[in-house]
Amino acid sequence: MKIALAQTNFLLGNIAANVKNIIKASEYARDELGAELIVFPELTLTGYPAEDLLLRPDFIAAANNAVYQLADAVDGIALVVGFPELDGDKLYNSAVVLHGGVTLACYRKRALPNYGVFDEQRYFAAGDQPCVFEFNGTFIGLTICEDVWRPGIIADNKKAGAELLLTLNASPFNSGKIHQREAIICSQVKAAEIPLVYVNQVGGQDELIFDGASFVVNQQGEVVFRAAEFKEQISVVEFDGNQPLSSTCAPLYQEISSDYQALVLGIKDYVRKNGFQGALLGLSGGIDSALVLALAVDALGADKVEAVLMPSQYTQDMSIEDAIMEADALGVKHHTIPIEPAVTAFNGMLAELFAGTAKDTTEENIQARCRGVILMAISNKQGKLLLTTGNKSEMSVGYATLYGDMAGGFAPIKDVPKLLVYQLAKYRNSVSPVIPERVITRPPSAELAPDQIDEDSLPPYDLLDPILERYVELDQSAEQIIAAGFSPEHVARAISLVDRNEYKRRQSPPGIRITPRAFGRDRRYPITSGYRGI
Amino acid sequence: MKIALAQTNFLLGNIAANVKNIIKASEYARDELGAELIVFPELTLTGYPAEDLLLRPDFIAAANNAVYQLADAVDGIALVVGFPELDGDKLYNSAVVLHGGVTLACYRKRALPNYGVFDEQRYFAAGDQPCVFEFNGTFIGLTICEDVWRPGIIADNKKAGAELLLTLNASPFNSGKIHQREAIICSQVKAAEIPLVYVNQVGGQDELIFDGASFVVNQQGEVVFRAAEFKEQISVVEFDGNQPLSSTCAPLYQEISSDYQALVLGIKDYVRKNGFQGALLGLSGGIDSALVLALAVDALGADKVEAVLMPSQYTQDMSIEDAIMEADALGVKHHTIPIEPAVTAFNGMLAELFAGTAKDTTEENIQARCRGVILMAISNKQGKLLLTTGNKSEMSVGYATLYGDMAGGFAPIKDVPKLLVYQLAKYRNSVSPVIPERVITRPPSAELAPDQIDEDSLPPYDLLDPILERYVELDQSAEQIIAAGFSPEHVARAISLVDRNEYKRRQSPPGIRITPRAFGRDRRYPITSGYRGI
Repeated sequence: MKIALAQTNFLLGNIAANVKNIIKASEYARDELGAELIVFPELTLTGYPAEDLLLRPDFIAAANNAVYQLADAVDGIALVVGFPELDGDKLYNSAVVLHGGVTLACYRKRALPNYGVFDEQRYFAAGDQPCVFEFNGTFIGLTICEDVWRPGIIADNKKAGAELLLTLNASPFNSGKIHQREAIICSQVKAAEIPLVYVNQVGGQDELIFDGASFVVNQQGEVVFRAAEFKEQISVVEFDGNQPLSSTCAPLYQEISSDYQALVLGIKDYVRKNGFQGALLGLSGGIDSALVLALAVDALGADKVEAVLMPSQYTQDMSIEDAIMEADALGVKHHTIPIEPAVTAFNGMLAELFAGTAKDTTEENIQARCRGVILMAISNKQGKLLLTTGNKSEMSVGYATLYGDMAGGFAPIKDVPKLLVYQLAKYRNSVSPVIPERVITRPPSAELAPDQIDEDSLPPYDLLDPILERYVELDQSAEQIIAAGFSPEHVARAISLVDRNEYKRRQSPPGIRITPRAFGRDRRYPITSGYRGI
Repeated sequence: MKIALAQTNFLLGNIAANVKNIIKASEYARDELGAELIVFPELTLTGYPAEDLLLRPDFIAAANNAVYQLADAVDGIALVVGFPELDGDKLYNSAVVLHGGVTLACYRKRALPNYGVFDEQRYFAAGDQPCVFEFNGTFIGLTICEDVWRPGIIADNKKAGAELLLTLNASPFNSGKIHQREAIICSQVKAAEIPLVYVNQVGGQDELIFDGASFVVNQQGEVVFRAAEFKEQISVVEFDGNQPLSSTCAPLYQEISSDYQALVLGIKDYVRKNGFQGALLGLSGGIDSALVLALAVDALGADKVEAVLMPSQYTQDMSIEDAIMEADALGVKHHTIPIEPAVTAFNGMLAELFAGTAKDTTEENIQARCRGVILMAISNKQGKLLLTTGNKSEMSVGYATLYGDMAGGFAPIKDVPKLLVYQLAKYRNSVSPVIPERVITRPPSAELAPDQIDEDSLPPYDLLDPILERYVELDQSAEQIIAAGFSPEHVARAISLVDRNEYKRRQSPPGIRITPRAFGRDRRYPITSGYRGI
């Protein structure tokens, strides 16, 4: 028996298009790959996560009707498709097996994740039993994503007679996730001695990247097939009864390369799926925008990307030189628009009101906001997506100007801590040198005041980043972080900045999640809060 | 027996302060009101909703330690306090009864809402049994919020021997909610024939307003006591055994007045709890900013509010006249800063790049964004909260400029549809006339282009608002809305605008929820989406 793994990258919410794509993929798997059964990702028909679209009766009706439409749409191959199954007033996260007009089985997901980025209990009722069907003489059990991460459900399937498991997934990427995923699932498979076919969605969906890397495990718990990471792919694995035969295993990327590919895919899909003409960004000569430019070009091609230099009196010559050098190296069109006329205008307009007050961050923010106005005007005029270039360290401590450098439709490196920004820049240069060396080696600066560097306001990044990881991602207390060897002043400074900058994060554009806890749907903090981590 | 209802307005997350406030309220109830038992709202110690603070071990430990601290802190009165109870690796939404150093009972909430603005299954495990304790010879059952909205749990308590029910709540306001709340709970109480004491939190917490209006129902299902709406209040009700004696019932506000009070409280608490020096806003002479100014003054006092007029060449004289007239009527300081110098600067800076292109919304957005820069500069310099003045109709269809008129820390009327904006303005003028009549009667305009009015771009509001309510709040399909009598063109225009403007809403500031479905935590839509309502 040949089973096809459909690692697809569909547009979320477009059920009609997804039906066509399912049919096309199934016919391809049957005709070109000789498959007798094809497995699609979790909630294939809607895409994942469809969020509150799942509360719309018209949307749910369309998805349920699509199953009827699919039932006899493709001959000679069985389709395993995920959909939000409506039964009375209950909605289930289900997988249906369609074969020649007959529904062979329909399984309702039992383990509904409701943590991190997952809100499945907001939408779905849980199923309460395994579902095993016979196909070509083999008893096959159905499972969906979270089911195979929890103890018990795989064993339950075996008890119910399953000899082979199919798992439909929408398992989002974060750094190192693929190893964790394979390790957990392989160990469960090994314990239960039942082979498993794991099909994952691929593609970017707002904050989330689905990395694909679908795989097949034999009953010894060994991966005998693996599809590519970050790519759409329909592949096939041959089985002897319930036993998968060894096939190709796509090699796993190094973690840094994985992170880079995730960011590239995230930009590419956000631009493509939202119908933008391309992307633009402010190129400062600093490391953050340098990395985002390289990512954008790798995602979209140089002809779709535009860089804007917006120097001020505080911009050093080397910033301009390095920005132009990178744009040229990447073959990207660039414009230079000095911000001085607008800054002067605003300072004049506010002179009377601000008379007698000292200069403070207000004046710095005006500069950043003038840049925001220029970039948004170009974005509006040209239909290009404005990429904002802030990193996770800045987002954490609020070292960014709301409506200024935070302006933009998408924030590619919002979940990338500063130290990782450097590593990714070096990684990119190791593929081909595009980011000038000086951008990597000079001390980072916002260039909003004379001789300003980030360390004037923040602990050094090699101390700040690990403190932030502990506080933001691991929920450690100040006490624990200090006990781990960080200085009380640095910890206090970092934590108090994180605590009081939630309001900025709430208005930041979505960005690509690559850590186990990103800002956004993943970390839901109140703005109004008397909690003080320090 | 006298039972006190502590309708408190605590700062979320500040456990140490909340402990002190609980002690203070309990001593007051004992000494001044003669109460023997005092009931606090749901999750008293942390405030509600504490969101992902509940995932922090240090925060949970502090809340659990606070219970020990409270246990013998107040003599001579029993305290019923809500807290997140940690047991092993499980967290419960619990209510504990503390009396003279002894824990009389501890109840774990059984019905955990996970819809709308509620995410309780993200944090809590559900309890599975009623909890009845004896106090002064009466058997008292404990319940928490959602428990008494669902059939079964009240009856369960009665079966378990309860003669009187206490309910700890954090029940957020929306228009008409108080009637719905009392109707549902009274009918359940009547069916079960068991008196009930309902204590609700009061105050603003980011998007949510808790309206208080705590009440006591006798076993005939009649409200025999009601605390004020939208006010902190500690009150007492006398019981004969389990039977509450009739007491004062605060009259219910008219719905329009309730909506107004909710908005006032929302502004007041956001400013106060976040430590702002006051508030400012751009006053255009239009109805939206006129209403927000009145609300802000009613919330904070005229001396804490500042209005900024920012006319352009498209601003009509009557706009300036009306804006100044209102500011004067309310006694609010105002400044006038024409935006022309900045607009001219930007147009000049972009002239080369935009040469040969036609004027479009880009140029309109530049004007709006210049205003955003000015207002944010004043906000930054003075430590005042910038109130943004967009209404729900605009938020729905994206008739607003990101980083322009959408700039601000808080959006008081973000959930108020345009027609309700007019009603609220008239209501405010009925109390005392502050909004010039012409602001209410002239056709609404963004004044970003010559002779522009909203109806050039949008269906008339008396058609748009009901379409939006059906699509956004009621999840109706285009087909259903057209079948209800709306023109297909208007429906198509409205829905397509809603669908494609999710990206703007995602970056909008938080605002006060007054409808059954607000934008924000209440309506979670993907940006990247192939779903088209039309």
